[in-house]
Amino acid sequence: MALEPTTAGAPSPGLVFDALFGYQRTAALRAAIELDLFRAIGEGPGDVPSLARRCSTSERGTRILCDFLTVIGLLSKTGDRYGHTVTSSMFLDPRSPACVASTARFLGHPMIREPFDRLAEVVRSGHTVLPGQGSVEPDNPAWVEFAHSMAPMMAPMAAPLGGIVLDGKKGPLSVLDIAAGHGLFGIEVAKQNPEARILAIDWAEVLKVASVNAARAGVQDRYEVRAGSAFEVPYGGPHDVVLLTNFLHHFDPPTCVELLRKVRAALKAGGRVAALEFVPNEDRVSPPMAASFSLTMLATTRAGDAHTFAELEAMYREAGFDDIARHPVPTGPHTVVVGHASLR
Amino acid sequence: MALEPTTAGAPSPGLVFDALFGYQRTAALRAAIELDLFRAIGEGPGDVPSLARRCSTSERGTRILCDFLTVIGLLSKTGDRYGHTVTSSMFLDPRSPACVASTARFLGHPMIREPFDRLAEVVRSGHTVLPGQGSVEPDNPAWVEFAHSMAPMMAPMAAPLGGIVLDGKKGPLSVLDIAAGHGLFGIEVAKQNPEARILAIDWAEVLKVASVNAARAGVQDRYEVRAGSAFEVPYGGPHDVVLLTNFLHHFDPPTCVELLRKVRAALKAGGRVAALEFVPNEDRVSPPMAASFSLTMLATTRAGDAHTFAELEAMYREAGFDDIARHPVPTGPHTVVVGHASLR
Repeated sequence: MALEPTTAGAPSPGLVFDALFGYQRTAALRAAIELDLFRAIGEGPGDVPSLARRCSTSERGTRILCDFLTVIGLLSKTGDRYGHTVTSSMFLDPRSPACVASTARFLGHPMIREPFDRLAEVVRSGHTVLPGQGSVEPDNPAWVEFAHSMAPMMAPMAAPLGGIVLDGKKGPLSVLDIAAGHGLFGIEVAKQNPEARILAIDWAEVLKVASVNAARAGVQDRYEVRAGSAFEVPYGGPHDVVLLTNFLHHFDPPTCVELLRKVRAALKAGGRVAALEFVPNEDRVSPPMAASFSLTMLATTRAGDAHTFAELEAMYREAGFDDIARHPVPTGPHTVVVGHASLR
Repeated sequence: MALEPTTAGAPSPGLVFDALFGYQRTAALRAAIELDLFRAIGEGPGDVPSLARRCSTSERGTRILCDFLTVIGLLSKTGDRYGHTVTSSMFLDPRSPACVASTARFLGHPMIREPFDRLAEVVRSGHTVLPGQGSVEPDNPAWVEFAHSMAPMMAPMAAPLGGIVLDGKKGPLSVLDIAAGHGLFGIEVAKQNPEARILAIDWAEVLKVASVNAARAGVQDRYEVRAGSAFEVPYGGPHDVVLLTNFLHHFDPPTCVELLRKVRAALKAGGRVAALEFVPNEDRVSPPMAASFSLTMLATTRAGDAHTFAELEAMYREAGFDDIARHPVPTGPHTVVVGHASLR
C-alpha cells in the first residue's frame, strides 16, 4: 500500500517518499510483533487503554503504532477500536496456525540487515560487505535462526513440494536433503512416503533443529543427519531424490554446476533433483517478490542471485540432468525446478 | 507498490513481507542517490556496462540494484536497458528542478533513523529514546541538515502558502517566521509582497542557511534573523503575520498553546498565524502520509504528534485566535491552518 495514492501515468512524489520511509514499516511491524500486539488485538476489545495494559506499553505509543499499522493495511480501525484485517488475523496473530510473525527474527538478523546499511559500497564492489563468503560462511549462526524462525514461511510449500518430488512414487526411497535447515521438506517427503529414508545435510547446530522437528513429526527412525558443508561432506547414496531448497541462489552458475555435478553423482540413473528457488521471469523484474530477492543475494553473498529458469536449466544440463521442468508453488512465491539424472 | 499483488478482501502474506522488507526499499533508493545513478539513467543509454562505468560501480551490483528499483516503480526496463519512469525523471534525476533526492539526507539522518531501531522500547515508554527533548534539543545539528536538504520537498508548498497567508494583502507587512529552517516560506512572502519585512527565528547555524537563501532570492535587505529557542527569544513586533511551519507537531497541545499565546501577544489585533502541518483526518489513519507522520513524532520527540484539525482549532482558540480555517496544499501532503488574533 503506497503512502500516497498514485494516478497511473502521473509522476508521484509519494512513490519516492514511500521508499524513503520504507524502513518505518519494517520497524513498526517488528515492534508490534515484539510487543505481542497482534495477540492482544485478536483477544479484544481493542481500545487503546486495554491494548496498552495487555502489552505493557504506553497509551501514546500504542495508539500511534496501531494507527500506523492501520495505514499500511495490517490492522483495521473502527471508531477508537482496533481489530484485525483478514491478513493480520491469518498471518500475524500467534493464535493462527498460518502465523508468520517468527520470520521477522531471521529477516531482521544482523547478517541480513546490516549489509543494507552499506548498500552503495556493495553495489560498487559487486559483492557483500560481510566477511569471507558472507551468509554461507561455515557454521554461520544465522542459519540456526533460519531453522527456528522461517518454518512458517516455508511450511505451506512443503506439501506441494513433496507431491511434485514424489509424483506418486511409492515404496522404498532414499532421499538426500541438502541444506535441510528446519528439515520440513525432507520430513514432508517422509510423511508422504512411509518407506522413504531421509539423509539431511547442514551445519551441526542447524541439524539439531531439524532432528527435533523430525521427532515431532514421528519420522525420526527414518531420519539421519550429516553435519558439514554441502560442497565437502560425502553424500552417500545412490539416492532416488535430492532436495536442494533455498540453496542455489547463494552461488554463481559455475559453483552451482559444481554442486549439481556432485548431486548427479550421488543419484541413481533416472533419479531426480528438486530445487526450491525464487525464480524470476527472464526480464528479472517480475514477479515482484522473486525478482526483488536478488538484492538480498547481492547484499549478503559474494556472487549469488535469483537465477532465472533459463539459467537454472543451463546449469542442470551442464551437470548431467535432462527432462528439466519448473513447477510454480501455488502457496508461495517459490518455484520447484526438477531435473532427472541422465540415463547415460 | 506491494511486492505481491493482493486480492481485495483476501488475506495476503505479501502485505506482511512487503512491510518486513520495507527497509530494503529505503536502502536501494538511498544507494542509488548516493551513487548518482538517476543522473546516469537520464543521460543514457542505460545498459548495465555504461551505467557501471558512469557510476564507478560493479556490473553485478548495478544490474541487481536497477532491477530492484524497477520492481518498486522507480525505474523502467526495456530489454537490457533501464530508463526513467515519469516519477524518477521528475523527482529523482538531479537535472530536474523538482528533484527531491537531497531529502534522503535529512530523512536518513541518525536522529530520525536510529530511534526506529528501538521502536518497541519507544512504544513501551511513550516517548523518544533520544536524550532530553529529542529532535528539539537546542542547536540540534539535524536541523542544519533539514535546512540544507529538505527545501526541494517544501519548495512546491511555498507559493501556495504565501498566497494563503497574504490573501491579496499589499503594502508594508511585518512577518515573523518561527523555526524558519531553509527560510523558503518567509522568503516567498517577501517575494510576493515587496514591502514585507521578515524576521526569521531558528538555531544560529540553521539561520546561516536561511540567510544564504534570502540573499540568493534578492530579499536580504528585508530579511533579519534572531537566533535561539522559539520559546525563549523575544518576538519583537507587533507583526502582521506569523509563520509556524513544521513546528507544532513536535509538541503536545499544552506546549503548543503556550507557544501560540506568545505568538498571539506578538501579533497586531486581526493579525494572522499560519501553521504548515501534517494534518490527518479525525480518524487519524487517513490520508496516509499525514497520518503515518505521527510515528516519526513518536520516535523522535517526547510528546509530539500529527495533530488533527479539531485539536489544532482547540489550541488556537485557547490561545486567543478565532476565524480558524484549514487550507490543504494542493502541491504537497501538508495543510495550512490559519487563525486570526482576536480583536479583543
